[in-house]
Amino acid sequence: MTREAAHDILQAAQARLLEQPFSALLNAEILAIGPGRCELRVPVSRDLQQQHGFLHGGVVSYAADNALTIAGYRAMNQAVVTSEFKINYVRPAIGDAIVARAQCVHAGKTQAVCRCEVYAVSDGTERLCAVAQGTVALLSKPAG
Amino acid sequence: MTREAAHDILQAAQARLLEQPFSALLNAEILAIGPGRCELRVPVSRDLQQQHGFLHGGVVSYAADNALTIAGYRAMNQAVVTSEFKINYVRPAIGDAIVARAQCVHAGKTQAVCRCEVYAVSDGTERLCAVAQGTVALLSKPAG
Amino acid sequence: MTREAAHDILQAAQARLLEQPFSALLNAEILAIGPGRCELRVPVSRDLQQQHGFLHGGVVSYAADNALTIAGYRAMNQAVVTSEFKINYVRPAIGDAIVARAQCVHAGKTQAVCRCEVYAVSDGTERLCAVAQGTVALLSKPAG
Amino acid sequence: MTREAAHDILQAAQARLLEQPFSALLNAEILAIGPGRCELRVPVSRDLQQQHGFLHGGVVSYAADNALTIAGYRAMNQAVVTSEFKINYVRPAIGDAIVARAQCVHAGKTQAVCRCEVYAVSDGTERLCAVAQGTVALLSKPAG
Repeated sequence: MTREAAHDILQAAQARLLEQPFSALLNAEILAIGPGRCELRVPVSRDLQQQHGFLHGGVVSYAADNALTIAGYRAMNQAVVTSEFKINYVRPAIGDAIVARAQCVHAGKTQAVCRCEVYAVSDGTERLCAVAQGTVALLSKPAG
Repeated sequence: MTREAAHDILQAAQARLLEQPFSALLNAEILAIGPGRCELRVPVSRDLQQQHGFLHGGVVSYAADNALTIAGYRAMNQAVVTSEFKINYVRPAIGDAIVARAQCVHAGKTQAVCRCEVYAVSDGTERLCAVAQGTVALLSKPAG
Repeated sequence: MTREAAHDILQAAQARLLEQPFSALLNAEILAIGPGRCELRVPVSRDLQQQHGFLHGGVVSYAADNALTIAGYRAMNQAVVTSEFKINYVRPAIGDAIVARAQCVHAGKTQAVCRCEVYAVSDGTERLCAVAQGTVALLSKPAG
Repeated sequence: MTREAAHDILQAAQARLLEQPFSALLNAEILAIGPGRCELRVPVSRDLQQQHGFLHGGVVSYAADNALTIAGYRAMNQAVVTSEFKINYVRPAIGDAIVARAQCVHAGKTQAVCRCEVYAVSDGTERLCAVAQGTVALLSKPAG
């Protein structure tokens, strides 16, 4: 793939991400994308913190969840949603931003299983702050 | 407990919740609180949606995570954090608000296991949209 | 349903369970079954313990997993497998037997989400020893 | 470390594993062990299958659970138990044996978070059949 094609794919993915008002509210940004993988960044801001000045766990789990979805989408190439996931928080998220890196570990016909590591980035240094694992499923009509 | 005492506890819990800028950003509200349980509401707004007009999964998982933490806090009566949780999304969250109801199922000396159901509320009717389960642990200093 | 019909359903479910050599090895028994629910018992024996004399966690998770599957099967009435689950152990499993009680909380067209509580039974007294939550999916051919 | 020392550590770990009657019943074997990691093998036998001739999910989750525990033990060097874990089954376990490989991703003072991949081994070829993630905690006295 040419550098231009890769750039176009990244731009398109970022545009789709910003169609989610909540992702826009959090200033989420896709840093990289590829077959079965995605790297998503959320900058730390005062609004996204909890009472101790750390990034709120809800922002960390948002980043993990969304990175899982996009990795699964890039593995299955069809519209998908995260149907379930699990996250372990291992360190407070302190710093300038978090980066969630997700990879698909298995893609079947109707769902993909993906994993994600979330790092807190501070002055260019990354520290693991959470790990997640979940299922991304083809989008179907609501079951009622 | 008198009605006044219960009201004071609820007010104090709500005040603590709003010390989290992210919870304030999401307009989260504690509807009820008691020993080992918590009921948390997040109103649906355009900002909190994803691209299909549903509430973003990240908001649903925020509500579950925070309700688990508060239920665990009210079981252990010490400062706690959610150390891990798992969520299954079962229906798109559509409506006026979501309500997350969490209960502690077992509290030990250093951690509590809690469960949560998240309902989408539309015109006064509730529909289950997610279930979660996780561990709430005593807050300790970051392990480095 | 007549008592005879209920008895026949239970007998048929137990016969299917024993078609699993591993369930037979563990002497698992279905105590009750109904729409979207299942109650499974595993008697404690020396062979199923870990080094401290408690029932091995692997037996507790087997019971949870299988009860989830059967509850999902009885919700969807089609051949299913557990595709994922999560378990929190809350107390050592000590006593005469464990009983796993699973309920379906939502059934869609292709999968069901179920929850389970596992109790240790000792002299007729039950104590919660684990809680689980997972997804039961229609059985499909291996994806390769 | 000399080859002899590594061999002794492996032998000691295997001896401890076999102190668990359930691990002995399943013929589980530790193939490799190191700081924060463990590789555990369970040979497929008729007794451990489910009704379709695949290894029972309960055996796969046993292997994941135990490998997580041992990896956490080797990260913390104190007596530990798996307090919770989550597993996604991605393929039926068919073949001669399964091998569960677990790694600690973060160790704190009271618990470690570990991940595990389970492979089905058939004629020397490995295929991923499950991924797991969980928490290993210092062993404490039962909380009552």
